[in-house]
Amino acid sequence: MVVELISVGTELLLGNIVNTNTQFLAEKCALLGLSMYHQSVVGDNEERLKDTIRTAIRRADIIILSGGLGPTEDDITKEVCAAVMDCSLVEDPHTKKRLEERFKNSIKKDVPESNWKQALVPVGATILDNQNGTAPGLIIEKNGKTVILLPGPPDELCPMFTGQVMPYLQKLQPEVIRSRMVKICGYGESKVEEMVLDLIDGQKNPTLATYAKTGEVHLRVTAKAASDEEAGKLLKPVVKEIRRRFGDAVYTEDEDESLQDAVVKLLKKYELTVTTAESCTGGMLAARLVNVPGVSDVFREGFITYSNKAKRKILDVNKATLKKYGAVSEQTAKEMAKGGVFATDADICIAITGIAGPDGGTPEKPVGLVYIACYLQDDVRVEEYRFKGNRAKIREQAVVKALDLLRRSIIKNYKKD
Amino acid sequence: MVVELISVGTELLLGNIVNTNTQFLAEKCALLGLSMYHQSVVGDNEERLKDTIRTAIRRADIIILSGGLGPTEDDITKEVCAAVMDCSLVEDPHTKKRLEERFKNSIKKDVPESNWKQALVPVGATILDNQNGTAPGLIIEKNGKTVILLPGPPDELCPMFTGQVMPYLQKLQPEVIRSRMVKICGYGESKVEEMVLDLIDGQKNPTLATYAKTGEVHLRVTAKAASDEEAGKLLKPVVKEIRRRFGDAVYTEDEDESLQDAVVKLLKKYELTVTTAESCTGGMLAARLVNVPGVSDVFREGFITYSNKAKRKILDVNKATLKKYGAVSEQTAKEMAKGGVFATDADICIAITGIAGPDGGTPEKPVGLVYIACYLQDDVRVEEYRFKGNRAKIREQAVVKALDLLRRSIIKNYKKD
Repeated sequence: MVVELISVGTELLLGNIVNTNTQFLAEKCALLGLSMYHQSVVGDNEERLKDTIRTAIRRADIIILSGGLGPTEDDITKEVCAAVMDCSLVEDPHTKKRLEERFKNSIKKDVPESNWKQALVPVGATILDNQNGTAPGLIIEKNGKTVILLPGPPDELCPMFTGQVMPYLQKLQPEVIRSRMVKICGYGESKVEEMVLDLIDGQKNPTLATYAKTGEVHLRVTAKAASDEEAGKLLKPVVKEIRRRFGDAVYTEDEDESLQDAVVKLLKKYELTVTTAESCTGGMLAARLVNVPGVSDVFREGFITYSNKAKRKILDVNKATLKKYGAVSEQTAKEMAKGGVFATDADICIAITGIAGPDGGTPEKPVGLVYIACYLQDDVRVEEYRFKGNRAKIREQAVVKALDLLRRSIIKNYKKD
Repeated sequence: MVVELISVGTELLLGNIVNTNTQFLAEKCALLGLSMYHQSVVGDNEERLKDTIRTAIRRADIIILSGGLGPTEDDITKEVCAAVMDCSLVEDPHTKKRLEERFKNSIKKDVPESNWKQALVPVGATILDNQNGTAPGLIIEKNGKTVILLPGPPDELCPMFTGQVMPYLQKLQPEVIRSRMVKICGYGESKVEEMVLDLIDGQKNPTLATYAKTGEVHLRVTAKAASDEEAGKLLKPVVKEIRRRFGDAVYTEDEDESLQDAVVKLLKKYELTVTTAESCTGGMLAARLVNVPGVSDVFREGFITYSNKAKRKILDVNKATLKKYGAVSEQTAKEMAKGGVFATDADICIAITGIAGPDGGTPEKPVGLVYIACYLQDDVRVEEYRFKGNRAKIREQAVVKALDLLRRSIIKNYKKD
């Protein structure tokens, strides 16, 4: 089965917005085992949209269009699609009622005149209710081709696709496709690839694919089978083998679990609390921890000590240490981490100090040099990194390595208990 | 002049990466006054790539291809393009030399065998040196069409486009195109549009376009003229009129200046220092300030007081205040901001406390309720917001509003001096 994506919207052609919908849809289609050879973007123009849809119908079995379902005159995707597929539009009572109910609870009370066209649907189309907007999604099947229309805003498109389109597409497939995302910290992409090369080469089902992320590598293991259970049986030994090879460098095999989620889970498991002492990252580490709902059980306070004075005053870093070794040094990182634990009642402190640039580098201490320390149970571990990239990139990498050092430190100290 | 974009890469079809290049190129082309009607993505497949290039050449005057210029066997964009345009490939001595020099300074010392193909160029093509990678960019002109080949990695493509392709494209245009980006905080997109409707409707040159960002609206004013100077003359009165209408809500008219840049600039101008006291944003505000190089003059330390205890201990928030009004209240925000100034030697403190969700909301204090306080010169100003969206979105909006409150507070207190 071949699928093709068409994004409709002049704002994409003008570069006003990044097309994140296409990445989202492409990843999900790959996960479903569908082949994709083309993606295209076209504006809200009748003739060009018609051409683009016709070309896609010729090349693919399933065409997914996004955008252009809004209430304004510019929004013509549904109308053009119906014309190309030779379907007439009729009013759908169910959608009409949903529109009325949606606006009843708004300030406007009544459905604006322009919105009524959103209740018109091609005859015979399957209607996908929109939980987050007024435009319903549509599935039109005709002459062996399937055309799926989705609203453009990502917060409407994504849940509609995951909740309603994925189950539909799955049913079209003769087999079920299941995957696990094994997430690895502490190995580079080429090293990971090298370590699983035999698994990649040797096996057709499950298949393996690597994805490089900032400071992480994700390995997707995908199996096709007649049933959920069978797919699970195919996945299990491969995931187990990967875990055996990478050990504790694997922090999850759950697609939706982030590194900070895994860290917060570990902290909760061992009933530990953590505090942060950040210099060059300036709060980014704490901000990532706080993005985890329910973090208050394990994180209560954190410090940004950007100046030397703040490092001394808040974290009790020794004046002589700063003078002798400098703010960006193993010694200062250690004292920051120790000071963080003593300044709070946290069990652990993660400290980061480094040179994020663009200025401030020297031949001995270049831009990108970062020290990360973790103080835990009277023991402090410090790591030195030399990151590449601009200021934002260096800080981002430092945060990932800090989260991972925290994770590894907890495992090292508590896992055997 | 019509331009069309083709992104080449199987990783895009699989959804492994978001296509940010296309947004970057589309925005720049719009800025150059070029018309764009199509963008497409195709994999590293000879037949399909040939078809896609042929279609684009038929429809457009200028075709920009990105990706597929690497050293591996998969990378075929240049070869396929040369075949479609009936150009032969020859070795370019200049590029060969650059490759040798680049590798001389690397660990490998010698140019790997596979990289030599990057020195092959279509006969007569203009070569664009790559400052950040091994693949040069290429401009091929033939039969009245221009095909531009760019490397895929954004850190190679973006500087090459800005530095070498933009000047080339500008020369093809009969007029110069200049624009200013007027950035506005504190008005919604529809309000901004309403307030400049007459300017949008009334004028063809300069033109106006609005861009909605999180908590901000950007207005691009673009003029076409015979010279730089003339374009400047056309822009000036329109930008002045916009500034008159929006007053201090305009924080810059410089494309490259962010809200945090503007805030740090103001702090430096009035020789002020700021500290931060964050609850629900957990360090995001400080992290954004610290992303500005040279922030150390105005920002030395910041606090994340996520728990009530931390708010009491670090910021001296009254226990009775927390009990009576709760952690998310006007009163607590005020005391946090005051406490931040007293705990440090900063002139200003910005405090944020709110309910980012998904849990913790009540009918009286729903998810999205955020208080932001600014303490400055014995005066504290507090604002209440009710943001929509998920945890990350609520926190992001809070940070923008906090930066803007800081900005407005400084202007209010110091501008008249």
